[in-house]
Amino acid sequence: MSKPLILITNDDGFTAKGLNELIDVAKQFGELLVVAPDQPQSGMGHAITVNNPIRFHQTDYYNDITGYQCSGTPVDCIKAGMYLLKGRKPDLILSGINHGSNVSTNVLYSGTMSAAVEGALEGIPSIGFSLTNYASNANFNPSKAIVKEIVGKAILNKMKKGICLNVNIPDVELSKIKGIKTCRQGEAFWDDTFDERVDPLGKKYYWLTGSFKSHEDSEDTDVNQLNNNYVTVVPTQFDMTAHKSIGEIQNWNLEL
Amino acid sequence: MSKPLILITNDDGFTAKGLNELIDVAKQFGELLVVAPDQPQSGMGHAITVNNPIRFHQTDYYNDITGYQCSGTPVDCIKAGMYLLKGRKPDLILSGINHGSNVSTNVLYSGTMSAAVEGALEGIPSIGFSLTNYASNANFNPSKAIVKEIVGKAILNKMKKGICLNVNIPDVELSKIKGIKTCRQGEAFWDDTFDERVDPLGKKYYWLTGSFKSHEDSEDTDVNQLNNNYVTVVPTQFDMTAHKSIGEIQNWNLEL
Repeated sequence: MSKPLILITNDDGFTAKGLNELIDVAKQFGELLVVAPDQPQSGMGHAITVNNPIRFHQTDYYNDITGYQCSGTPVDCIKAGMYLLKGRKPDLILSGINHGSNVSTNVLYSGTMSAAVEGALEGIPSIGFSLTNYASNANFNPSKAIVKEIVGKAILNKMKKGICLNVNIPDVELSKIKGIKTCRQGEAFWDDTFDERVDPLGKKYYWLTGSFKSHEDSEDTDVNQLNNNYVTVVPTQFDMTAHKSIGEIQNWNLEL
Repeated sequence: MSKPLILITNDDGFTAKGLNELIDVAKQFGELLVVAPDQPQSGMGHAITVNNPIRFHQTDYYNDITGYQCSGTPVDCIKAGMYLLKGRKPDLILSGINHGSNVSTNVLYSGTMSAAVEGALEGIPSIGFSLTNYASNANFNPSKAIVKEIVGKAILNKMKKGICLNVNIPDVELSKIKGIKTCRQGEAFWDDTFDERVDPLGKKYYWLTGSFKSHEDSEDTDVNQLNNNYVTVVPTQFDMTAHKSIGEIQNWNLEL
């Protein structure tokens, strides 16, 4: 049996520590192609580059691993990776390890997870990994053991097409992690604000900031289980239809 | 009873014809605040601006309507609008009318629809409108009748919090539109490619391009009904959990 082909990206950029740690684990499982953004792309969600051209070129940054740096978003990187493979399909797509957690509704804002969702759209089993630590020098050693377990089981169990996994890892020593919970996306939201400042020319500018708050106490949500020091795994789909609301809207009797 | 407060944005930018046509209909229903991107933001998905500051300032472009132009993405515009309202909550959020359709999985890539999804996250009934015509001078007259019908019924029926509507309009005369169908997001995907070119300095660059293809024949999908000249309405949610797959992943027995 040939080794699995694994396409890898992230949203913190091609030199990020988390990406390099992910590569270090993934190379034990198969042949890798890395296509990562040439600059940080946090918060880019499912953005694609349509109003501007995209550039990508090979880099020797990863030594013996085939790597490209790409001017686009994480989703662009997945599309570029598919293009570079010239019809050969990856067996698995991995994204991360993100510097910062992506639980709950952050799945929508996260470039890391949007790359994994794009993989699901391509019909390829995909996993996004995030560590609850924004620091560029965060300790990824516990994460590496977790990535190894999850990637190994995903390959062993032939992960279903059309979904991806949103994996979040608490920022504690491995001995303090209580286990791995597969659960649902919790109801949690950003309480946004804008930090108003004035530039040297006297014009106002704003930083988007805020705090992330859980709106439910249930034990079966990713946001609450991550806070309880569990690794959380949320199977994630690209169908955003609110199926239960179709009948309600049909009852409006919309007509021309 | 006071008039509804309606927050409006789009992704084609604050001077786009589709936005101005939407404003023209919406002002019949309530008090408006328009916060729109200062440049085209197509394909920006749910991107937010976190690595750079954001600017927004008032514009008199919309005459008697309070309007702001914003340097950020459509989702940033919704967040900026909420900030500018200083705690007052809009009764409705409208986005569009987009120049180009956003059926099926385009809900993920679309700045227009991501602004509506952000509205749903904020707990505000939200609707994104898209016309199947990319031209900057597209004819929005049939669309205006449809927007009026849907916004009127959304206000009348007190649209549920936590969902938004993805409305797509065929590019034909009103008399040729067969009706309005509430349905689900179809399984359709971009078959991507990159158009390789060489710049004057001899370096390669690429345009992301491709064709959008439906992968199912079912009558109850937005992509197929739009092709049949129906206006399509898909109730859309922000929970991306693949609930049916939770049990399957739990059976992998992930452990540390």
